[in-house]
Amino acid sequence: MANPVVVEVVRGARVESRHRGAGAVVDADGAVALAFGEIDEPVFPRSAVKALQSLPLVESGAADALRLNDAEIALACASHSGAATHVETAAAMLAKAGLEVASLACGAHWPLGEEASRALSRVGQTPSPLHNNCSGKHAGFLCLACASGWRTRGYEQAAHPVQRAAKAAIADVTGAALGEDVCATDGCSIPTYAVPLRALAHGFARLATGVGLAPRRAAAAKRIFTAAAANPAMIAGEGRFDTEVMRLFGPRVFVKTGAEGVYCAALPELGLGLAVKADDGATRAAQTMIATLISRFVAIDGEDRARLGPFAAPVLRNWNGIAVGSLRPAGPLAETPS
Amino acid sequence: MANPVVVEVVRGARVESRHRGAGAVVDADGAVALAFGEIDEPVFPRSAVKALQSLPLVESGAADALRLNDAEIALACASHSGAATHVETAAAMLAKAGLEVASLACGAHWPLGEEASRALSRVGQTPSPLHNNCSGKHAGFLCLACASGWRTRGYEQAAHPVQRAAKAAIADVTGAALGEDVCATDGCSIPTYAVPLRALAHGFARLATGVGLAPRRAAAAKRIFTAAAANPAMIAGEGRFDTEVMRLFGPRVFVKTGAEGVYCAALPELGLGLAVKADDGATRAAQTMIATLISRFVAIDGEDRARLGPFAAPVLRNWNGIAVGSLRPAGPLAETPS
Repeated sequence: MANPVVVEVVRGARVESRHRGAGAVVDADGAVALAFGEIDEPVFPRSAVKALQSLPLVESGAADALRLNDAEIALACASHSGAATHVETAAAMLAKAGLEVASLACGAHWPLGEEASRALSRVGQTPSPLHNNCSGKHAGFLCLACASGWRTRGYEQAAHPVQRAAKAAIADVTGAALGEDVCATDGCSIPTYAVPLRALAHGFARLATGVGLAPRRAAAAKRIFTAAAANPAMIAGEGRFDTEVMRLFGPRVFVKTGAEGVYCAALPELGLGLAVKADDGATRAAQTMIATLISRFVAIDGEDRARLGPFAAPVLRNWNGIAVGSLRPAGPLAETPS
Repeated sequence: MANPVVVEVVRGARVESRHRGAGAVVDADGAVALAFGEIDEPVFPRSAVKALQSLPLVESGAADALRLNDAEIALACASHSGAATHVETAAAMLAKAGLEVASLACGAHWPLGEEASRALSRVGQTPSPLHNNCSGKHAGFLCLACASGWRTRGYEQAAHPVQRAAKAAIADVTGAALGEDVCATDGCSIPTYAVPLRALAHGFARLATGVGLAPRRAAAAKRIFTAAAANPAMIAGEGRFDTEVMRLFGPRVFVKTGAEGVYCAALPELGLGLAVKADDGATRAAQTMIATLISRFVAIDGEDRARLGPFAAPVLRNWNGIAVGSLRPAGPLAETPS
């Protein structure tokens, strides 16, 4: 069965492209509030579960032992733009663990943020692993290893205690079985485990409420969400979806992207978790899907709804700034007559 | 009816993302040699028909009157990387028409080529309309206007003789009806007309053979393909798909991308035209589709087949260079047992 068309890309009066996808909104008891498409097939959540992968850092006491501040905890859950503030924060985390940049196993890439990338080029530099969008998560892994007395070398490998702790946290929170058959390698070289969208959404509802989690884990989740809400620019970067949506909603929405068209979100005040994946891996489709779901569930006034609009149904402009089309939710996500 | 899944993105042992699409391989008489998905629904070909849009420049005699060379004619059909060679060639075309950069109506954007973009940033510059990937096509439009004695202002508008000539060429070569209902605005502000994949493929077969075209038009098509084959780096840029595939095959393959997952190609020695579109607009999917079709029809030895492989089924490597997955043709494009 094909997943439904959920996002249409319109040019002039015609649909130019179509994205299919699946998604689920689930409460902490596992009750499905809304679902479309196949939600029980495992999908790689990629970076959308960085908040889960960072639970051991906080709940173990490592973050406190190394005096990590909220901005640093937020960066541990980020896919950042590689701007100066991100690079400096990741470097500060390493310094607190007494480590050098060379300890990072994430690899180097040009900053995700176009402005950050050009700024680096302008001063004649090339990117270091600190510019990798995952450097905060990796610095967090290293902080956990140091504070726990584990060797840091090989921390990105599945058998290392750091990755075993991250895997155990994902399995516990989502309830998913994370066997060899659902394991692959992520862009930053750590293991990634495929999890059904239903379980991801359920997991984010549990993170949002603490329901079904051990007290230390529930407290760590709360601290991570609070840190992210206070530092939305750390999670992604200026002008980027995750940062701007979290700025708009504050602590009412935690939202995080993953590569290949994944988004996970938590709505703490409603006790709901959300997870979507675009079949084709398109970020633009996943953004329209998650923004549409957020606007369905979170009570927002007309002004905030207008501010969310550009994320749910962005206007497409050409190089001369002329509006040539738009993205719009379709099928199960289409606007219902009000 | 949903188009079939034609490209799978694999991570580890699992399919992470799936692309659906349609495509057609057609000869100059309109006979379909191969087709999959919906090929009679109009799709915007975008930049994939720049070779058609440049026919009037050549067949009118404007290119000869202004002494455009083959590199310049190739650039008129390009979506270039914005490297120095592209910028200089576009500037030379304008100079031959006695025009300034300010005449270009395509708008400015940072070079498509990452290296070109960083090089521009490194010297403290910002992009001009010459860096726009369409600047060669626009310079060609301006050359046509100048040599024809038409005003240049407004050359990007549908009612201007330049755009009417381009539209008439597309309609003649593809046989498609280009009414208001299939017209929208392209990224560079000119009109784009939706055409069925079957008609696009048929049109490229006619371009490749001259069958059914007026002698001047057939000669112009031949000159354009010859110019492109001799200057593959002008059509896209170093390391990019169109350039590298044309380098590999020389005059045996003309291939051109369009935004939102379109590719058109011509196989002159076989008299075939090809057109594909990924439903979701993904370029990576369209590349795998067109490379797979080319390898099905063009006789190539083992060595060339190995060189085409990375385009048809590229290995995905992470930031540390580790192979984490691949793209592969699927469904109607999957390898058949040999």
